[in-house]
Amino acid sequence: MCYTVPGEHAARPVCIGAVACPPMAGSTHVFQAPKGTRDFHPEDMATRRHIESAWRSASIRHGFDEIDGPTFEHLELYTVKSGDGIVSELFSFNRSGGETDYALRPEFTPTLARMAASKGRSLSMPTKWFAMPDLFRAERPQRGRLREHRQWNVDLLGVTGPEADAEVIAVAVSALRGLGLSAEDIRVRISHRGAAAGLFAALGVSEDRIADAFTLVDRRDKLPKEVFAQQAKELGLDDDAVVQLDAIANSRIPATCPPSDIASQHSLPIESVADLEALSVELEQRGLLPFCDWDLGIVRGLAYYTGTVWEIHDAKGTFRAIAGGGRYDHLVELFGGPSVPACGFGMGDVVLGLLLQERNLLGDTPGSLLPRPDVFIISNGDDPADRMLVPLATSLRELGLHVRHTWKATRNIGKQLKEASSAHARLAVILGDQVSGGLIVVKDLDAGDQCDVPLRDLPAWLPRHLAGGPTDRHT
Amino acid sequence: MCYTVPGEHAARPVCIGAVACPPMAGSTHVFQAPKGTRDFHPEDMATRRHIESAWRSASIRHGFDEIDGPTFEHLELYTVKSGDGIVSELFSFNRSGGETDYALRPEFTPTLARMAASKGRSLSMPTKWFAMPDLFRAERPQRGRLREHRQWNVDLLGVTGPEADAEVIAVAVSALRGLGLSAEDIRVRISHRGAAAGLFAALGVSEDRIADAFTLVDRRDKLPKEVFAQQAKELGLDDDAVVQLDAIANSRIPATCPPSDIASQHSLPIESVADLEALSVELEQRGLLPFCDWDLGIVRGLAYYTGTVWEIHDAKGTFRAIAGGGRYDHLVELFGGPSVPACGFGMGDVVLGLLLQERNLLGDTPGSLLPRPDVFIISNGDDPADRMLVPLATSLRELGLHVRHTWKATRNIGKQLKEASSAHARLAVILGDQVSGGLIVVKDLDAGDQCDVPLRDLPAWLPRHLAGGPTDRHT
Repeated sequence: MCYTVPGEHAARPVCIGAVACPPMAGSTHVFQAPKGTRDFHPEDMATRRHIESAWRSASIRHGFDEIDGPTFEHLELYTVKSGDGIVSELFSFNRSGGETDYALRPEFTPTLARMAASKGRSLSMPTKWFAMPDLFRAERPQRGRLREHRQWNVDLLGVTGPEADAEVIAVAVSALRGLGLSAEDIRVRISHRGAAAGLFAALGVSEDRIADAFTLVDRRDKLPKEVFAQQAKELGLDDDAVVQLDAIANSRIPATCPPSDIASQHSLPIESVADLEALSVELEQRGLLPFCDWDLGIVRGLAYYTGTVWEIHDAKGTFRAIAGGGRYDHLVELFGGPSVPACGFGMGDVVLGLLLQERNLLGDTPGSLLPRPDVFIISNGDDPADRMLVPLATSLRELGLHVRHTWKATRNIGKQLKEASSAHARLAVILGDQVSGGLIVVKDLDAGDQCDVPLRDLPAWLPRHLAGGPTDRHT
Repeated sequence: MCYTVPGEHAARPVCIGAVACPPMAGSTHVFQAPKGTRDFHPEDMATRRHIESAWRSASIRHGFDEIDGPTFEHLELYTVKSGDGIVSELFSFNRSGGETDYALRPEFTPTLARMAASKGRSLSMPTKWFAMPDLFRAERPQRGRLREHRQWNVDLLGVTGPEADAEVIAVAVSALRGLGLSAEDIRVRISHRGAAAGLFAALGVSEDRIADAFTLVDRRDKLPKEVFAQQAKELGLDDDAVVQLDAIANSRIPATCPPSDIASQHSLPIESVADLEALSVELEQRGLLPFCDWDLGIVRGLAYYTGTVWEIHDAKGTFRAIAGGGRYDHLVELFGGPSVPACGFGMGDVVLGLLLQERNLLGDTPGSLLPRPDVFIISNGDDPADRMLVPLATSLRELGLHVRHTWKATRNIGKQLKEASSAHARLAVILGDQVSGGLIVVKDLDAGDQCDVPLRDLPAWLPRHLAGGPTDRHT
């Protein structure tokens, strides 16, 4: 059995008794990735790039600029906002003999707030930023929730009005639509911290317990019904109010209905209803209402939200939230920057990947998201052909083409064509008997047809053919 | 003054004396990124993406598949190869109360070897992989060497011959050429572990000290001349041999000269000269000889290299190495996998960024690498124009265009055109007086000319105009 010596930095495993430690140097032990982390083999990586590319494209189309920060931050950056309680959820460490504690970033918002604060008064208004960091949680891994995941963050700083909230929701929905998801697949569930607070107050929660009520409602799906009821009572609700709270937390109204419909059912503060009414107009301008529901059960667990809050879920409710965000008007100030209104969201790659897989939106076959080779060059094994292969590959790659060839000893053309097909190459360029006469056979592996092309024309012919333009086929 | 309590997990700062600690909750303290790490504001990020895009493009053109692994690994993955001595160079940690030690990855090769080993006999031959991980070093940061950097890794597994070494060098050079660097700017310095070992033996180093000789030669630029001489003597060299070693380590021969030229000057093992001769043929086939030098002073510090080793430096020798790599035929086996010949390299973003900056290859102005908006929409402030702005932006973004508009209250067209220009937008779409008649003004901000386009034609007209095709200008 192995354990680490507490308090010793970078402690080495210590052996007790007869149980063998993992062998060290010279070992043939097969190593594994740490629990809750992922190896991305080429097909997994192609999926990740497919998702990241949709995120990035939606961000740029909407005029957001990409940023990034360090993978680890001063531990204090997280405790200042969330208190020391967060430390057990973090991977924290310090440099051997160092004086400062660090933590792997568990979320990107503190880094963003720090970067915005560092700009001080020179921060342009609005600032539209996005990032795609790796984030880390020292929790026990669960389905849809790993110790390391990639998260897309989109933030709009400097705009108070609901057009900013609608704009970041538009970016999120645009990326999901780009991945093939429709309003049948995903729902944006929208609420408002002020509306929810008013509702909780009306049900009997005292002002100093409103934050606890947010936490309880946010965790309700993880709690047995009777535990939820018990904790609700502790917040000051009577039996009747607990039933009401549960009903409200589980009811959703299509956003195509005006927010006043909810206000008429429940007594909500006037300002929050006005916020949602204004948001509704902005969502409509962006064609988003069919994707959205009003849902007062959405409160978001984090303490820093101040107004509109929202989550995106799969329509069937099979998975955890795909994305979550809202308005956080005081965060930049908390990190020493100017007072800046702000809103934004985070969307992870894990739950989204599960949903895309369930909907068959990750390509027909496991490898179909991999970049396709433009050209697979084949030599018939004669000297002139063999000598030409590598220089030809080099010059076609200089033109920007994705070029492959076999690394096997075989010069059997049939076997090489088979390898070209399994690599999903678009064209096979065959250096055959006519090479000394300056002619090359090009076979279109999708269409199945082939033609002869003079070697000297190839650099112009191939890009044109691949772009689908006129190709002057010779046969 | 603040210090942390040694041995306490996630220790909090403790105050001594009157010097103020950074304030905690509710603070207006301005936080900083940890020493040796970087914040990437939009212009910095655009530079990073520019470099990554060249890396990625070169990898894909040469038929390599992208992979990635976890940001942290079991600490043992690094100690198994390098011994416990490496621990002080790592950021290591464990989960609160956990039994396993982890470390932020200091290099990608162990992860790659672990992933290859996990495939066992199903690993395809060859396997051509690339990755662009963030890597971490717990050292004091220096110019060109940070605590966190991004490193491109390219590896070719399963091929024994020099065509594999030449292929990975081709990928590296191709990316650097894609960034605008020529054979005047960069030099690939190539050596061979066997050749260097033979040379050291001929100079008097005993077989069991050859590895120490590699380390000494690798570190020679960091040592005062007399320390180098002293340490060389301890390896068994006499005064004359020390002078010879120093001369050899500092002489380079253009690779357009045959490797036998070096062999005739120094007594090198026949097999290693044959390796370099064969490599020379492969480099020539790929047009690489003008970029390369033979340089027996290149030995690479890491223990796992077995044959050809090489580094890329700026031609003037101003900076640290831009890239380093070589052949490591036993590494996958060490991690429990099959015996697989392999070669590859790593190239970081820090030194490369410094060189590109020095050569003015990062664009004319700081923002010139940022993605350019295709369209900047401007409203003259009349109701019909204002109502049209957001729906038009939405529909153009759905077509894939990068669309911006002002978030300021101003509806002054001149001010908005100025904002469009500073955003480097290509076209301004102006919703002006003729909007109610269905006409829109499109101004080309590069060319300076403008024309009227019917609103209904805009979705077809804009992409065609942006692609440089015929645009049916109306004025």
